[in-house]
Amino acid sequence: MQETIEKIEAMLVLKQYSNLRAFLCEMNEADIAQIFAEMSDEKIPILFRLLPKDVAAETFSMMDTDQQGLLIKGFSDSEIKEVFDELYVDDAADIVEEMPANVVKRILKNTDPKTRRMINEILKYPEDSAGSLMNTEYISLRPNMTVEEAIKRIRRVISDAETVYTCFVTKDDRKLLGLISIKTLLLSNKDERIKDIMDNTDVYVHTHDDKEDVAKAVNKYDLVTIPVVDDEMRLVGIVTFDDAIDVMQEETTEDIEMMAAIAPHEESYFKMSDIHHARNRIIWLLVLMLSAAITGHIIANYEAAFATEAILVSFIPMLMGTGGNCGSQSATLIIRGMSVDDIKLRDFFKVLWKELRVSALMSAVLGAVNAIRIIIQYHDYTLALVVSLSIIGTVVMSQLIGCMLPMLAKRLKMDPAVMAAPLITTIVDAGSIIIYFSIATKFFNIG
Amino acid sequence: MQETIEKIEAMLVLKQYSNLRAFLCEMNEADIAQIFAEMSDEKIPILFRLLPKDVAAETFSMMDTDQQGLLIKGFSDSEIKEVFDELYVDDAADIVEEMPANVVKRILKNTDPKTRRMINEILKYPEDSAGSLMNTEYISLRPNMTVEEAIKRIRRVISDAETVYTCFVTKDDRKLLGLISIKTLLLSNKDERIKDIMDNTDVYVHTHDDKEDVAKAVNKYDLVTIPVVDDEMRLVGIVTFDDAIDVMQEETTEDIEMMAAIAPHEESYFKMSDIHHARNRIIWLLVLMLSAAITGHIIANYEAAFATEAILVSFIPMLMGTGGNCGSQSATLIIRGMSVDDIKLRDFFKVLWKELRVSALMSAVLGAVNAIRIIIQYHDYTLALVVSLSIIGTVVMSQLIGCMLPMLAKRLKMDPAVMAAPLITTIVDAGSIIIYFSIATKFFNIG
Repeated sequence: MQETIEKIEAMLVLKQYSNLRAFLCEMNEADIAQIFAEMSDEKIPILFRLLPKDVAAETFSMMDTDQQGLLIKGFSDSEIKEVFDELYVDDAADIVEEMPANVVKRILKNTDPKTRRMINEILKYPEDSAGSLMNTEYISLRPNMTVEEAIKRIRRVISDAETVYTCFVTKDDRKLLGLISIKTLLLSNKDERIKDIMDNTDVYVHTHDDKEDVAKAVNKYDLVTIPVVDDEMRLVGIVTFDDAIDVMQEETTEDIEMMAAIAPHEESYFKMSDIHHARNRIIWLLVLMLSAAITGHIIANYEAAFATEAILVSFIPMLMGTGGNCGSQSATLIIRGMSVDDIKLRDFFKVLWKELRVSALMSAVLGAVNAIRIIIQYHDYTLALVVSLSIIGTVVMSQLIGCMLPMLAKRLKMDPAVMAAPLITTIVDAGSIIIYFSIATKFFNIG
Repeated sequence: MQETIEKIEAMLVLKQYSNLRAFLCEMNEADIAQIFAEMSDEKIPILFRLLPKDVAAETFSMMDTDQQGLLIKGFSDSEIKEVFDELYVDDAADIVEEMPANVVKRILKNTDPKTRRMINEILKYPEDSAGSLMNTEYISLRPNMTVEEAIKRIRRVISDAETVYTCFVTKDDRKLLGLISIKTLLLSNKDERIKDIMDNTDVYVHTHDDKEDVAKAVNKYDLVTIPVVDDEMRLVGIVTFDDAIDVMQEETTEDIEMMAAIAPHEESYFKMSDIHHARNRIIWLLVLMLSAAITGHIIANYEAAFATEAILVSFIPMLMGTGGNCGSQSATLIIRGMSVDDIKLRDFFKVLWKELRVSALMSAVLGAVNAIRIIIQYHDYTLALVVSLSIIGTVVMSQLIGCMLPMLAKRLKMDPAVMAAPLITTIVDAGSIIIYFSIATKFFNIG
């Protein structure tokens, strides 16, 4: 890519604009947008104006928000109109949503009334809803049309629609009746009625459904497009698979980061300021730091124990580490299992019982390995017994806590990912110290 | 869903087969497969045989491997033929791949020669390659066809193809020339030549490309179908977006689990045996447990310090916890950033410098909060200073290690996710203890 950028910059310097235009036209819009992201801002407007109208609009929709804003600032009113009329309306709405108020005003002033109405329609839905994600340009057919009439209609309206792969069959009051793929249309006899060959599918989402559920439905049913209906079952828009994939990726990133105790955010790593980074990470750290103080207090209570047997202190990191790791393994499996619908809330006791069995197996092995190590190293059988029993107790406790907390969080309508490694580690730390010193005081006659 | 299952079971008991058939036909195949998964195995064959041929094949492809195997076992040869001839060839290949040898033999014996050849073609590619993921049934057009001829050809071959949304233009030697969407075909004049209206796209993948790269390309270019070519640029298959989504989900699950020190596996939570679960989780635990022993040794070296100042021990969990959390936050951001191509290897020093600044901000706040807490609780200014300086050192060190290790792993062609929380926590634990006791021995004149 570095090479491509250098080539483009060289042509810019030499003002070889027609060569440059031909060169850019050979590239995919996603690649052009990626190259723009790597170039200095002052070169973008010149390059952008070299692109043919449709390529320009598609590229524009794939650029990042900062560069879009910069371009719009330099656009004449007619240029705004040209780009926004060419955009798919869901992309246009996404862009409008990110722009400052004065820019939004200029955009809406310069789009045609129909586009403006559709953008406003999409913008009125809450940010995480199916409504905010949908495109209002789709192909609708009537049940009594013949295949021939349908294909004629498709040819007439096709240029506006984002996808023609699936057409939607609606009644006069826009109520969704079914859908029909272009494949079925092409396979059918031209005199057949749409209502006789359409799919009476009951797969659709509501405008107010969470966008994560939309993505899940697209994935489950392998759909290129899913219809979005309002409370009266009227078709108001469609969501296409590419937007569903983006939602999946964003939600996954959010889950992964939440599991590492990072507050959710929308910006990318380098785009986010240092202060913003620090703020997103420090909230949970402060909470966890102060809860770790509790573990500290518990340790302080056992001062007598490690004053007598100083060697006990040196096993603390191993015990806490193993407990934390076991707990976060269980939590991770349960959180991910729930997010891909592999584990359901009603499986609570099934999960608990499974983790109990797995932890019995694991703790036996870990305990035995530890006992052997301690006997070889210190020749102290009591110490080996104390540490190994503590490991067994810690591993079983950690796995049970690790599997229960995410499910409880979900039951309480919280995001299960909150209950991941950092929080569980902190809870498990305190537990493992209590188990350890309770056992140690018994065997060493301390205190 | 529970309700639907009860309804179906009631109809089964009453032997209302035609009602049952009508009831099942109203449902989506993905839902039927999901319901089968929840029912006892002996009921599946009866229900399955009630489904119409096309619904049966689609449902079959969505069922889990165990149930598929069970059904095949009970199938007559002609039933196998019926189901496998109806399946898309990539789904058929996936199923064949999972079955034991004797079942595979029966399947291949009972499919028609063309299907058998295509299945074998797909099976010869390595498991994680684009070739193993592709479907060999697609629509290919010739550059000199007119739009009218193209549409005629599409109508003729359409029933075999998985998708008609994109048609591929190839030369006589099957070399890929470009692609054309059905939208363009419907928009164009019937006398136009395909070569004049097709897209000379350079977006394709090679048979030996990793399937993760295929998924990334589908996501980047928003493609319903991506062409797969061999080394001579001959078109050999296509990958559709739904298979790409599945790959994305699997890879993400693998990443998330690897980040929690769980060995990669393919089975779902409940399907996997207890022993298998234990084995997947214990490998890393053993490694980490033994490395934690090193931290234990370091602590043992400072016996003199906590013999004099017993209170020092009680801050160990807080320091280790904060260090571990900071390290895993950085590691998580970098690992995820690299997997969505937001952070590249060449950004190494940019990342390092950013994490240094962020850690300076965070450690200052965390140090200050801790100092205040200790002064309020213990009225001990030296202790406050020692602990806060240790926190500052630990946080900066943890974040730098947390961001560097995943990038180094990638540089060494390892999976960055290996360098996540558990491993980093263990490394950072040792580091924080060294920082802590080095500072403490200075200020308290110990040893």
